[in-house]
Order: sequence, then C-alpha cells, then structure tokens
Amino acid sequence: MVVGDFATKRQLVIIGGGPGGYHAAIRAAQLGLEVTLIEKEKLGGVCLHKGCIPSKSLTQTAANFSGLSHYKLMGISVPEATFEYGTFTNYYSSVVTGLQKGVEALIKANKIEHLTGSASFMSGERIGIDSGHHFEMYEFEHALIATGSSPLLPKQTKLSNRVMTPHTLWELNELPASLVVYGEDYFALEAAMAYKQLGSEVTLITPADGFSLDSGIEKELLRVLKKSKVKVFKNHQWESAEETADTVAVTLTKDAEEKVSIDASHVLYAAGYSPNVEGLGLEAINVERDENGFIVVNEHSQTSVSNIYAAGDCTIGMKLASKAIKQGKTAAEHMSGLSSAFNLSLVPYVVHTNPPIATVGLTEEQAKSEGYEVKTGQFSMSGNGFASILGQKEGLAKMIIDAKTDVILGIHMMGAGAVDMIQAGTYALEMVAREEDLAYPVYAHPALNEAWLEAIESVSGKAIHVPPARKKEKSTV
Amino acid sequence: MVVGDFATKRQLVIIGGGPGGYHAAIRAAQLGLEVTLIEKEKLGGVCLHKGCIPSKSLTQTAANFSGLSHYKLMGISVPEATFEYGTFTNYYSSVVTGLQKGVEALIKANKIEHLTGSASFMSGERIGIDSGHHFEMYEFEHALIATGSSPLLPKQTKLSNRVMTPHTLWELNELPASLVVYGEDYFALEAAMAYKQLGSEVTLITPADGFSLDSGIEKELLRVLKKSKVKVFKNHQWESAEETADTVAVTLTKDAEEKVSIDASHVLYAAGYSPNVEGLGLEAINVERDENGFIVVNEHSQTSVSNIYAAGDCTIGMKLASKAIKQGKTAAEHMSGLSSAFNLSLVPYVVHTNPPIATVGLTEEQAKSEGYEVKTGQFSMSGNGFASILGQKEGLAKMIIDAKTDVILGIHMMGAGAVDMIQAGTYALEMVAREEDLAYPVYAHPALNEAWLEAIESVSGKAIHVPPARKKEKSTV
Repeated sequence: MVVGDFATKRQLVIIGGGPGGYHAAIRAAQLGLEVTLIEKEKLGGVCLHKGCIPSKSLTQTAANFSGLSHYKLMGISVPEATFEYGTFTNYYSSVVTGLQKGVEALIKANKIEHLTGSASFMSGERIGIDSGHHFEMYEFEHALIATGSSPLLPKQTKLSNRVMTPHTLWELNELPASLVVYGEDYFALEAAMAYKQLGSEVTLITPADGFSLDSGIEKELLRVLKKSKVKVFKNHQWESAEETADTVAVTLTKDAEEKVSIDASHVLYAAGYSPNVEGLGLEAINVERDENGFIVVNEHSQTSVSNIYAAGDCTIGMKLASKAIKQGKTAAEHMSGLSSAFNLSLVPYVVHTNPPIATVGLTEEQAKSEGYEVKTGQFSMSGNGFASILGQKEGLAKMIIDAKTDVILGIHMMGAGAVDMIQAGTYALEMVAREEDLAYPVYAHPALNEAWLEAIESVSGKAIHVPPARKKEKSTV
Repeated sequence: MVVGDFATKRQLVIIGGGPGGYHAAIRAAQLGLEVTLIEKEKLGGVCLHKGCIPSKSLTQTAANFSGLSHYKLMGISVPEATFEYGTFTNYYSSVVTGLQKGVEALIKANKIEHLTGSASFMSGERIGIDSGHHFEMYEFEHALIATGSSPLLPKQTKLSNRVMTPHTLWELNELPASLVVYGEDYFALEAAMAYKQLGSEVTLITPADGFSLDSGIEKELLRVLKKSKVKVFKNHQWESAEETADTVAVTLTKDAEEKVSIDASHVLYAAGYSPNVEGLGLEAINVERDENGFIVVNEHSQTSVSNIYAAGDCTIGMKLASKAIKQGKTAAEHMSGLSSAFNLSLVPYVVHTNPPIATVGLTEEQAKSEGYEVKTGQFSMSGNGFASILGQKEGLAKMIIDAKTDVILGIHMMGAGAVDMIQAGTYALEMVAREEDLAYPVYAHPALNEAWLEAIESVSGKAIHVPPARKKEKSTV
C-alpha cells in the first residue's frame, strides 16, 4: 500500500499494550484524545504475561509454602503439605487471564481502538500496522512507543526448556531439581529464593560484587540466603552453558582466570535486556537512542522528535513496570497540553525475597559518595513485637539521613511488610521529611511499622528496644 | 511504717510496667534520670499479657488458617489441615514470654530499678510500695501513673470460664463451639472474625448503630462479616447473661423494647473499661479525673499536679497501646526538661479483621460535620493486581480530601496490607499532604500500595483501573 490520502487519522497511536502503553492509552482517553493501541500479542504485555504477575505469584506461593512450618507452631497442623507445580502454573495463568480481561474491558470502556498487529513508522506522522492478513496506514498527531525489552542471552548460549530467560521461565511445567540463576537484579534474587523454598537446589551467581543494595541490607540478604541454603557466587562471569540429556553444565570465570563449572537441571539467565525496537522503523523517524539502543526520553517522556513519546523498558534507565506506568501517564498528559513531568529519583525498588526487600532513596554508600555527611539508624526486626507474632524475625530497617539538615535521604528495609510499607518512605522523601517527621507521629502497636520508628530513634540513641550499649554501635555519624 | 527520714529518694517513680510505663522508664533512663519502675504482676502489662500480643497472635493465626483454602489453588496442597487450640495458646505464650524477657533485659540494661508490688501515694512527693512481705517508702521528684484499665462487666453478670472479658479470654483452653461477642470496638471485631475463621459459630452484637468507621469502610466490613457468616446485631443492648451447664443465654434489648435471647457456649463482653486507680491513693494527691475516673492529662502527659504524670489507658481518651507509648515517652521527656508534647489527632486506628482495617484522620462523616467541603475517592481492592495474586480481593481504599485546599483529611482502608500501609497515611497527614503529593510519586508495581494511588486518582476521575462510567459515581464533591 502506498502512503497517501488513504491513511486513517488518529490523535494518538500507541505501540505496545504493556503497562506503559495501556496506562497511557487510558489516561489519554480520559483527557479526550482518540487513541489507537497496537499490540502484537496480548494486552498487558510482559509485565502481565511474563513478568510481574507470574513472578509475584511465584514468590508469594513460595513464601506461603515455606511459611507452613511456622503455622504448625501456631496450632495449624498441615501434616502432608505438598507443592504441585502444575497447579501453580494454572493458578498464575488464571490470575493473568483475570487481569487481562480487566484490561481489555477498560480499553473498551474508555473507547480506545485496540488493534492486533505489528507497527512500523513510515515517517514522523505516519505508521503502518501489519495485522498479518491486513496492512493499514495511520496518520498520527502523537505516537507513543512502549514496546518493552527482551532478555539478553550470550550469543553462544541457546535457549531451551532447560536454559531459560526471565521471559521463558514461565514455560516451565515442573519444579527444577536444581537451578542455576545468573543475574544481579531483583528478578534473579526472587527466582533464586522462590525456587529454593519450593524445593529446588539453587545456586545464585552474580557477575558483580553484590546486588546494588545498601550495605546493611545486602549483608542481611546474604545471611538469609545462606541460612536458606541458596549457594551464592559473587564476581563470577558467565562463559558458557553446555546442555546434555539431563543437565546443563554452566561454566563461569572468576577474575577472568579461575574457571568454575556448575551442573544443574535448569539454568535461568537473567542478566541484561535489549530494547524491542527491531522492525519499528525507527530509522524513518530518527529518534535519539543510547549506545545500547534504548530510546532517550526527557522528563515528559518525549523522544528527540517532539510528537513522538516513549515509555517503559524500551527507554533509557531502570527496567521497572512502575517507571513504564509513570512515563506512560506522563506522556498522555503532556501531549494533551498539561505540564506533567516525571522524576525517577525516588522510585521504590522492591525485591520479593522472603522476607522481602523494599528501598527508596539513597543507600548509605550513595549518599556518602554524593558528598553528604551521613548519619544512619537501624533496627533489627528481631526486636519488633509484630514480627515475633508472625515468626518472621529476619531483616532490618535502615534510615539514611543528612547529618547537616536532618533530611531523610533513603529508607531501606528487608523484613515482613517491607513492600507494603515502602510507599510511606516514598511519601516521606517526596515531601522532604526530616528525622523529626518520622519520630513524632504515633505508630500503631503492635505493628511492623514500629521498626521504622525505632530505626529513626536509633539515629539519636533513643530506640526503646535497643540496649544502651548497642545503641552506640548502631548510631553512626 | 511512718513517713520520715527513711524514705528513699528517686528522681522518677513509675507505677505500671505496661507499654506506657516501660517506654517512659527507658526514655527517662536514656535522658539520665534515676528510675524506679513498679509493677504488680509481669512487665509488659495488659498489652503484652492479655491484650495486643495474644490478640494479634489470635487474629494472625486465624487469618493464616482461613487462608489455607486459597493456598490449594496456588498449588500448595494441605489435605488435612486442622487447628489445635492448645498448640495455639502455647504459641502465643511463647511469643509473650520471649517479648517479656526482652523487656526485662532492656529494663536491666538501662539500669532501671524494677520493683514488684503495689504502689500508693502518700502525698505529692511520697509513695509507698507494698511488695507483700515488705513495705517501702520513696520520695520522688516525678511520678508517672501508668496503671492501665480493666474491662467493665455489668453488675449482675458474673465472670466465669464461659462469660469472659478481653482480659480473661486468654484463659480459654479450647475453641468455643459458639461465641457471642458484645462490643463495638476493634477488639470485638477482631475476636468475632478470628473465632469464626477458626471454626466457632459467632454472633457479634453491638449496642451502637455500627463500629464508628468511615461509612465506606463500614459498609464493606458488614459485607465481609456477612460473607464470613458472622451474624451481626446492631443497636442491641446487653441485659443479662444466664449460665447453665453447657450454655450461656444472653438477653438483649432492642430500642429498649424488643427482647432477644441468644444461646452460645461462650460469651465475650468487650464494651467499656474503667481505670485501674483503686488503692493508688489518688485522694492523697488530688489529681483531676473525669466523670468515669480516668485521669486528666495535658499534651505533656502532666496531670493537674505538675510533677505527677499519667499515661495510657488510665487516662482520658482512646484506649490504645500506641497512645500509652507516646504519652509515656512524652512524659519522660517533658519531666527531663524537654518541650515534648503529643497530639492524638492522627493516631492510626487498626482492626485486625480479615482483611484488616486501618485508618488515620477524619472519616467522611467527621469531615463533613466539622464543616469541610469534602471530596472523596475510593478504589476497590478487586481492581488491584497484587490483591489478585494474593487472592485477597475484598476491601477498598478511601481518601477524604478538603475540596477547598486539596489537603488530605483522612485515609481509610480495609484490605490486605492495610496495617502495614497506614503509616504512610500518618506521614502524609502529619506533613499536611495534598492530593497531588499522593498522586505524583511513583508506586511500586504490582503492589497493594497502588490501591491508594488509584483512590487518589479517582477523586478527579483519573483512576486507570476504574471504568469511566463508574468514575463519576466514585468521585463525589
């Protein structure tokens, strides 16, 4: 088909129906735009089908299963509890399907045109949609690219039902007897701990020196991983994976010298992503991209071409659905004439290990390297009454504070309730809270929240449930 | 013994080793005071031994037990799960003992003198301690009364192992076949739902028209109670309880006319408290008390006698450990010369039903009656992705906002994670957050927290997971 008068006009064409795309579509529709949403596969994208939802179903199921041993102490006798992988996959599939239907209904209710197909830019105003049997051209005022990213795999390594990435892990239909997880982000940590708790032997290998968490949290995480009998190898780089009938032999190098080989029934390679931009015709619109191909956007989610926006994993920066959602909504608002902008300096970072980790703001190390004079406070969950009730006494809460102004720079927690509590940290940091702002309020009792109060109080040696001698150690300037 | 030169001098004498007393003792010791802490029974008080800790062990155990049916869907098969009451009582006893030892160790580490006995004021500067076999007189600079309160029981009603109060409930050693709960506060709600989930037949009777919650939350609570098959009678007042060998017959009146009789194996009367002040010799110090005998304190926890402070349930106002803790620490600081004061307008209110309820600030009804022009937003947990993963889709989050200033006046939630999330509300309200302060930050995804974002967004019709038609209903000015 030749571009011409036949092109259908649309105010906004969105490529990709993941969280970035569908949030943008709905917000734009709320603001009165005519929206066309193009998705190759199913609405909800990687987050719904191969990411957030399956992975949090996994971590939650694993946490529930491992928690049963404590239930016995509480009087709940579960003599023959077993875990069935097939039932679990049915479970998360049904959750995914339910949420997908919800998104579909919302798209319809918001009168958004939903097309299934592949999109390719022809110019800065025109885009073609190939739905397999049909090709149509649209003329757009605004476009949003929200195509996501795909996991990387080293060139020599072949994907199989034993060698998996975060996206293919969900094709697994049995519990791995043994699993090697290679990676350094939340996904690697979550998979390692969840499969261990469900019964797999797990080895976690990170190419880096750690997991980029605050030193206090990282130390506790490593302790918990060790206690959970997850083997951890730091500073080991991937070299190759050799598959036989029953196992995969993973070869790693340490310090570019020492070679280590580990056998496992399954391997999860979860280190790095590349943007989904192939076939999009980006060359026709010439948007700026970084050295790895990720689309450069400004704080309004605008690319270097002012009527073309981008959101989510295909853009520079962190790969988190929360970022995609914020960028998508920001794009929709900005192209509608609002002055919306996002700021990713205070994005909560969550790891659904058991106990979970949730952090916001600067780590102690980051704060120091940014030149702050730092004071810190921390409190162990073992001193929290509600954690005792739950029987979940692992973990700690840690506060990072600017010693000159008392402004809170970062809040870090590993422990029961951390994920649900982290938004309190985001609010506090967004509103430039000082030490006193967290010390003054009344905290419910007994509650996991009190760990934050005591972490704040410990900055000045005032935590009630920390003995005086220990207070000095904990409170450092 | 006659008062005279023999009186031992102390800077601070605290009567009562519950949360108010022991927090005050430790904070005062941190500030350099010589502290004597007098407790009749065990350190930790009602909260630790007959209140917060046993009751939250109960609610948590019940929630865990009732959650098992969902575990099956997740692939966790628990074919023969049973609940054993005796094991449960051992469980919470061990939690209580562990925490008690912790408090004892802290008292010791802070070099606080701990005496077991009954205290009685002789004057505004002297107090006698009767430890049974020994009587000693102390001369104090400051005193703190933190003696708590005791549940009321109507005069004609006799306490037994079938007719219980919130304090004697913990003597129960078997699951009640059927239970009548009479009361209107969090304790009544928690006990009703927990025992129902553990297998008792439960009837919840409230003398009032409801449970003093925001109307949106109350409606959802009543729906959940009904679905859980807890029978609820509102506006029914206690008349009598007649005990036979096997049952208790409770007679109630409705509108002072209609009589209703309900039989149950056990009855929990949880309506009202009186201050523990008998024998304290308050007449010797003449502190002001209200018409029910509760001690009047100012915002520094000072009684009408300036060197005598009071904290917790024996004082006027709400009966919550969180208040006792805040008042105890405030008293310790104020008598040490600091300008500390507390403010109870933003105390989080928590109910460990399943799902739990947590609220802070004004209800919609309170805000309106205080003259605010109110706008509200709410979001159902059934639209939250993480709630779907958990299989806990009951509940909602509701925001109460001043329409003129956009200042948030109240945050109310019934739903998974509510308790852990409520501190975010306290921070927001303490820092005078506006609608935009909750709408602007990035929220982790998928997370229960997102329900708050959508509740805020729904105020202006911008919630993503609410269809356009419903938005109008939800957003009211």
